[in-house]
Formats: sequence, structure tokens, C-alpha cells
Amino acid sequence: MPRLNLGNINSHVVEAKYAVRGELAVKSEAYRAALRKGDAGLPFSEVISANIGNPQQLDQKPITFFRQVLSILEHPQLLENEQVLLDSLGYKPDVLERAKFLLKNIGSVGAYSASAGVPAIKESIAKFLEKRDGFPADPARIYLSAGASSGVNTLLHVICAGPTSGILVPIPQYPLYTASLSVLNATCVPYYLDEAAQWGTSVETIKEAYNTAKNNGTDVRAIVIINPGNPTGASLPESDIRAVLQFAAKENLVVLADEVYQTNVFIGKFHSFRQVLLTLQKENPGVYDGVELASLHSISKGMVGECGHRGGYFDLIGFNTDVEEQIYKFVSIMLCAPVIGQCLVELMVNPPQPGDPSHPLYEQEYNGIFEGLKKRATALYEAFKEMEGVECGEPQGSMYLFPTIHVPAKAAEAARAEGRTPDEFYCMRLLEATGVCVVPGSGFGQKEGTLHFRTTFLAPGTEWVSSIKKFHKEFMDTYR
Amino acid sequence: MPRLNLGNINSHVVEAKYAVRGELAVKSEAYRAALRKGDAGLPFSEVISANIGNPQQLDQKPITFFRQVLSILEHPQLLENEQVLLDSLGYKPDVLERAKFLLKNIGSVGAYSASAGVPAIKESIAKFLEKRDGFPADPARIYLSAGASSGVNTLLHVICAGPTSGILVPIPQYPLYTASLSVLNATCVPYYLDEAAQWGTSVETIKEAYNTAKNNGTDVRAIVIINPGNPTGASLPESDIRAVLQFAAKENLVVLADEVYQTNVFIGKFHSFRQVLLTLQKENPGVYDGVELASLHSISKGMVGECGHRGGYFDLIGFNTDVEEQIYKFVSIMLCAPVIGQCLVELMVNPPQPGDPSHPLYEQEYNGIFEGLKKRATALYEAFKEMEGVECGEPQGSMYLFPTIHVPAKAAEAARAEGRTPDEFYCMRLLEATGVCVVPGSGFGQKEGTLHFRTTFLAPGTEWVSSIKKFHKEFMDTYR
Repeated sequence: MPRLNLGNINSHVVEAKYAVRGELAVKSEAYRAALRKGDAGLPFSEVISANIGNPQQLDQKPITFFRQVLSILEHPQLLENEQVLLDSLGYKPDVLERAKFLLKNIGSVGAYSASAGVPAIKESIAKFLEKRDGFPADPARIYLSAGASSGVNTLLHVICAGPTSGILVPIPQYPLYTASLSVLNATCVPYYLDEAAQWGTSVETIKEAYNTAKNNGTDVRAIVIINPGNPTGASLPESDIRAVLQFAAKENLVVLADEVYQTNVFIGKFHSFRQVLLTLQKENPGVYDGVELASLHSISKGMVGECGHRGGYFDLIGFNTDVEEQIYKFVSIMLCAPVIGQCLVELMVNPPQPGDPSHPLYEQEYNGIFEGLKKRATALYEAFKEMEGVECGEPQGSMYLFPTIHVPAKAAEAARAEGRTPDEFYCMRLLEATGVCVVPGSGFGQKEGTLHFRTTFLAPGTEWVSSIKKFHKEFMDTYR
Repeated sequence: MPRLNLGNINSHVVEAKYAVRGELAVKSEAYRAALRKGDAGLPFSEVISANIGNPQQLDQKPITFFRQVLSILEHPQLLENEQVLLDSLGYKPDVLERAKFLLKNIGSVGAYSASAGVPAIKESIAKFLEKRDGFPADPARIYLSAGASSGVNTLLHVICAGPTSGILVPIPQYPLYTASLSVLNATCVPYYLDEAAQWGTSVETIKEAYNTAKNNGTDVRAIVIINPGNPTGASLPESDIRAVLQFAAKENLVVLADEVYQTNVFIGKFHSFRQVLLTLQKENPGVYDGVELASLHSISKGMVGECGHRGGYFDLIGFNTDVEEQIYKFVSIMLCAPVIGQCLVELMVNPPQPGDPSHPLYEQEYNGIFEGLKKRATALYEAFKEMEGVECGEPQGSMYLFPTIHVPAKAAEAARAEGRTPDEFYCMRLLEATGVCVVPGSGFGQKEGTLHFRTTFLAPGTEWVSSIKKFHKEFMDTYR
């Protein structure tokens, strides 16, 4: 008998759910491997991983300026041949300058940095925050992380003190939150987003969820907001953000603002929690001073799309120094975020400016990616509108659509017979028939009695969209 | 009042201790910043971070072949100008080949990989393990991680089910183990290493610690071994490893073999737990089949020294499939290890071979680093031998020396008056006087009544060693 089995290992890990890379994803990878080996028995010739926001796996090209700088950081001896870089390899002078700036401040990208990140990179982030929000930022309150996921992990580890610690989490949500709370054996306090109002955030609903949890003895400590939304794509108006901050100030809740999709906004404009909070503090002296806000950002999304490099940061407002010391200690146990990922954060927040030699190409690439994503999102949305029993809001932001599906009663029965929820059943059949991998709504949470799935709109071409339409029609006909 | 304070946040995080980056390290960084700003009030002109095994921060150069490959992975468009790379930039054909192999198998290093790592990289690791140990390895049992630290975090998270779960940890130890067990609220079961026997591992001592813990109601599940040792530098003979595995087989304990210093061995030869276990299984059919072994390795140490890239892996033997599924799920929540770090793992386990164009330079660099480390270790050891009240074993392996210090009673009194242990007091005075940052033995654990400090021998030159000698003499004279 092995010492470890499902019954005696950490039950909180066993209970955690993470559907984005669950059964469907595993099966899709097996299909991909089979296709690579020339397996001809499958009804499709390609696997489309629409289950995960992984831009560069699909079609998105890295930004040239970023990668040219990184190539020098990885091999600084290239700087011994500047003329070759400039004349024969298409590097512009600002690429060399930036690489030298970073090398001067970092030394080697192969060395551990300071635990919270390279000081010069934190200074660049502070400048970016000031420019974005119109309020100065303190580099000492910024912590580099291995993607935003690692930042969320750090913050929840410090905030949650045990099973009665509660965190308000939007439903549907990116399952990192529920999975991390499971592992920590803390309490997820779900609040539902309003599908009828473009998946907006209703303070009334939050209040209800908060009061119910409080009455049940939960010590609710923080509220998570994902803006733009994942999986919903919702992009919050400033009024929603103000309302959340008012509620947080009143109930003394820490605010965790997951803003990794801040540049993926198609409708309206991104408003940062930081900007709105600092405005409220200015407008209402004393009222909002106590609000603790942690805002998270990442290189994985947006037009950067560098998920594989695992870079990100969070910045803190209003946290107690004692608590920040514990955050520092916690991140120092894992030593530091990947240094090359930290450099990508610096490049993201401090890209080429008009007049810089690399700016024209940077702008062209950036806008090309943005327009491409918008076009794909719209094409997919149009396809959903034509599908029987499918309802989907207009694409607002992030990298996802999250349509509602209505399946016939016979499909729900067939799902039950397989031990699956109807949305899992639908997504599994979709994968088997088309090679398109999406994530059932149950992986993110959804209102009782509703069904959804989340799909990215990152994949190029229209063929995969057509294959979803064809599958959907056949599915409906089979179970009608 | 802020919502979060030291009294209401996660007490297990608050209790965790991680001295490697603690008060002394923070103070040393402040000194470094002051020196950068031209502060002339300090009695030294340079800070030597001997507190942490961070080779490339000090003097170790990256291996050229590795970094040339990485530069192409970061900017694949370089391959559009192969002739320029070959003729003008000193890249050899095998650099280009390896970059193409990796790009073919990865796509973009900016994309998430599979959760447990890039399949082709796991295959390279399996080949390396087979070559190193003489037994085939299964790529499906290999998990890439963000440095070995992240692997340890994963394994302890899955293994520890609560406060009564106990893990045998060597003392002195690398404090990642005790810190992680604190955060997990699991029980550290310390077993002392034998300083008189070159910090060897005594099964008698392990047995006693195990029995005491068991009698106290602790469910001891696993044993950690760090070989070569950190902080001790000990390099275990095969007989010690056999004895530990015999004990583990008898008591049904999971074995966690931290082997990140496997190439930093100056005396004798590195024996992997994997090789010894598979040999025992072959020699004694049935007896060792149930042993669960997790072995960890990293790109951070050895002649690679690429800590900043956060790469590593662990491989499993004998784990239940159900349990491996939980490990997979746990790592998938953080998505994947940094992909460029995964590529460095591939390069580490599959370096240029004799006859390959890059081999001569690779070998020269590798041997140069190895000999340099050995020479520095010996020089530091010789210095310690000459210092009053300092005892230190001959350097055997890893990147550290861990001398015993005897301080005068008056120094111990002065330490108490400052609320410090005598070794903390000694290390603080050393930092203030010389700019040399080392870690007190209490940060790793030490037998009651003994005092030590850990120093790396990575810093170049002899000046810093002389300044330690000079400080030590003055310290002894002051408190005699």
C-alpha cells in the first residue's frame, strides 16, 4: 500500500476544483498528441484550445520590441556587436538602450532579484500607475509576481486566517479564486453578477451575500472584483466601481482588484480601482482613507500575451506596515518572480513612445492585435446569435465570450446518465466532435438552472466557428 | 483601523521564519542602496551577499551555449539571419539546431505550456535520468517547476493533511522546509545531522526523532533529505542513502530528496536517491517496491546558476495515480512553470556533447566554474581554520560553509541585551563592520548550545575573507 492515497492526503487540495485545465483540457491534449502521431481516427484535424486565454499558443505574435530587448538580456554579449544588431538584424537604437538600462539595474537575468522585484522595475511601474491614474505611486508598495495568479495566491494566503475567514467572490469567476480558497480552507462568499445587465456588479446583491455570510458567522474580510470580467468579459462603468468602494469603506473590506484584462476593452473605457479610490479619497476627506486595495496586473493578457513568461505585479494602498512585512516574507520564501518576466513587466508599462525608433512598429503590432481580437470577438458573437437556444451579450472586454445555452430535456437526461452536468456534457460532445475545447459554465459558477460555456476568441480563421455551429445544430437535433 | 493587522491575518504565515532573506538581508540591501547613492558614512565600499546561493549576482558567468539558445527562443526572427549569427556573432550550428528543436516543440516561449511542463522537455529529463542512474525514467512522472522551491511547495501541500501530519526534516536545514510547514500548519519533525561525522545522516537519530514524534501522536508521513547538504555542504555516501531508504521502506515513509546541489560535489561522488532506490529494488525483489520517492532538481545551482530564471523539476517513483492527479491539479492552478526556465532545464540536462561545435567552450566554462568554486571554498576554509574559536569541516559540496563559532560570554550577554541570539548578534556586527552578509545558524536550526553561520563561497577575491578575519579578531578582543 502506498503511504499516500486520496483518502489521507490534504483534503483541501482534493476538494479544490480547477476546470480550466481539468478533464476536458486533459482530453484535448491527448487528442493533440494523437494528431501529432498521425492518428487518422478523429473527426477533426486540429485541436483548438479555446479553454484558456493563451494568445501566443494560437495566433498572437509577440511584440517585436519586447522580444528584441529580451534576446539581449539573455545574451548580453550581443552588445559587443552593436553594429551587427543595428545593420543586419533590424534592432533599433532604443532596443539597445533599453537592454542596457535593464542590465545596468539587474546585473544578470540569471540572478535572483530582491524578493519583491527589481527596484528599477518597480519605479517604472510606479511611473506607469501615475500616468494611468493621475496620482503618484510608491514603488515600495509594488510587488512583482509570477503572473497575477501568484499574486492572488500570496494575498489570499496572508488575508485568510482560517475556515471562518470569508472572501466575496463574483460568480461566475475565474476558478483560481475558489481553488485557492479551497486549498486554504477559507470560505468563499459568492455574489452573483447580473447577466441581464451585461454581467454588471450589483451592490445590492453583494450586500445580500455579505449579510447572509455574516449572519452565518463568517468573518468577511475582502471582496474580489475581476474587471474586465473573466469569464464574463464585462467592463465595469465607473459608477459600479464607486459603489463597490463605498460598500468596502462602509463594511471595512479589503478590495482585491484583478485587472489583468485592463487593455482588452472594446466598449467604453477601463477604470482602475486605484484611480477611482484615490479620486474618492480626494473628494471625501477622511471617508475612504482606511480602504485597503490590492490591484493586480499581468503580462499574460492584453496585447502583450506573454503568459509563458509568468510575469505580473500587485500594488497596495492602505495596508498596515506589519501586514506588508508578512507579505514580503511570504514572497521571499519563493525567492523572487522570474527575472525575465519582471523585465517584460517593465517593457509592458514603459513601451516605446511616439518619436522613439521602435514606436511605429510597436504601434502597428499593438493596434493590429487589438483590432484582430475585436474582429474575432464580433464574428463569434454573430455566430452565437444565429444558434438556436444560445444567448450572448455583445463583446465588451477580456478574451472571452460566455454565452448562455438552453439544451433540450433529453440532453439533460443523457448528461445525468453520464454523471455530468448538462453543460459539461455539451462541452465534452463539442470537443469529441470538433476538437474545440471550451470550459463549461459550471467551472466558473453560474446561477442555478442556467447553463453556459466560456470560449476564448483567440483562435484565427472562421472554420472553427463554423464547426461549432454545425455541431450545435446536430446536438440540438439529436436531443430535441 | 485597517481591516488587516498582525493579530488577525493568517497566523501560520506570521509564524513562518525565513532568515535567508530576513532582517540581515534587508539591512544589507539598504546598505547597497546607500552605497549606490554615494553614501560615504559606511566603513566598507561594497556589500557581499554571502547569505544566499546566487551565483550570477556575484561572479559566475552564464554558460554561453545556454544563453545563445535562449536569445533565439526569445527572438525567433534571428533565425531569418542564420549566416549573421554564425559569421558575425559567434553562434555555432548546434546553437541554432537546439533553438529550432525547442521552438518546434514549444511554439512560443510566451505561451503557457502544459501544466506539468513541455512534453519534449520531460523526455529530455527522462533520458538524463536514465543516463545518470542506469535505469529508464518515465516522462509522465516528471513535473517542471518554478525552481525547486515551487516543487517542494507543491509536494508538501499535497502530503500534509493537517496539524498532525509530520515531516522529518534535517537540522540544520534550508528554511524553505520549516517555513512551508509553518504556512501549512503541519508538524516539522526535526532530526539532527551529525557535525562530528561531516554532517552525515544517522539513521539512529532519525529513528529516535520518528519514534518520539509517533509517540506524541504525530502521523509522520515523509522524510526530507538534502544531499549535498544545505547549509552543511555534506555529500552523503551511498551507505547513508541506503540506510535512509531502508528506514523509509520499513516505516512506510515518503522520501523527498532535495538534490539541487548534485553537481556541486568536491569530495567523493554524488549518489542520487533514485539510483540507489532502483538498485535496492532490483537487489531485493518486493522489499522496496512500495517506496514513494520524489527527487528535486533545479537550474539555480551547480555550474548553471540560473536562479533568476526559476526553473526546476521533480520526478516521482511509486506514487499512487490518484495522488499524482492531485499533484497535477495543484500545479495547474498556477498554470505552468516559466517556459524559458523549462528550456534552461532542457539545456542543463542535455548539454553539448564531445564533438558538438559548442562543446569545447561549454566544457571550458563548466570546468572553470567548478574549479573556481572549489578554490574559493578551500581558501575560505583555510581562513576559518586560522580564526580563534571557529571550527569548520573540509568543503565537501553545495555552495556553503557552515562553521561553528564559539563566542565569549560577554558577547552572549550583549546579544541578550539586544534581544538577539549570539549568532544573530555576531552576524549583525559582521554586516555592520564589513558589509559581508551571512546567515546565523539559528536560521537553519542548530543543536542547543552550539552557534554557527552559513556563508556562500561564491564571492570572488580574497579581500572579503580578510575583512571577516579582521572583524572576527576585533569581535573576540572586544568581548573577551
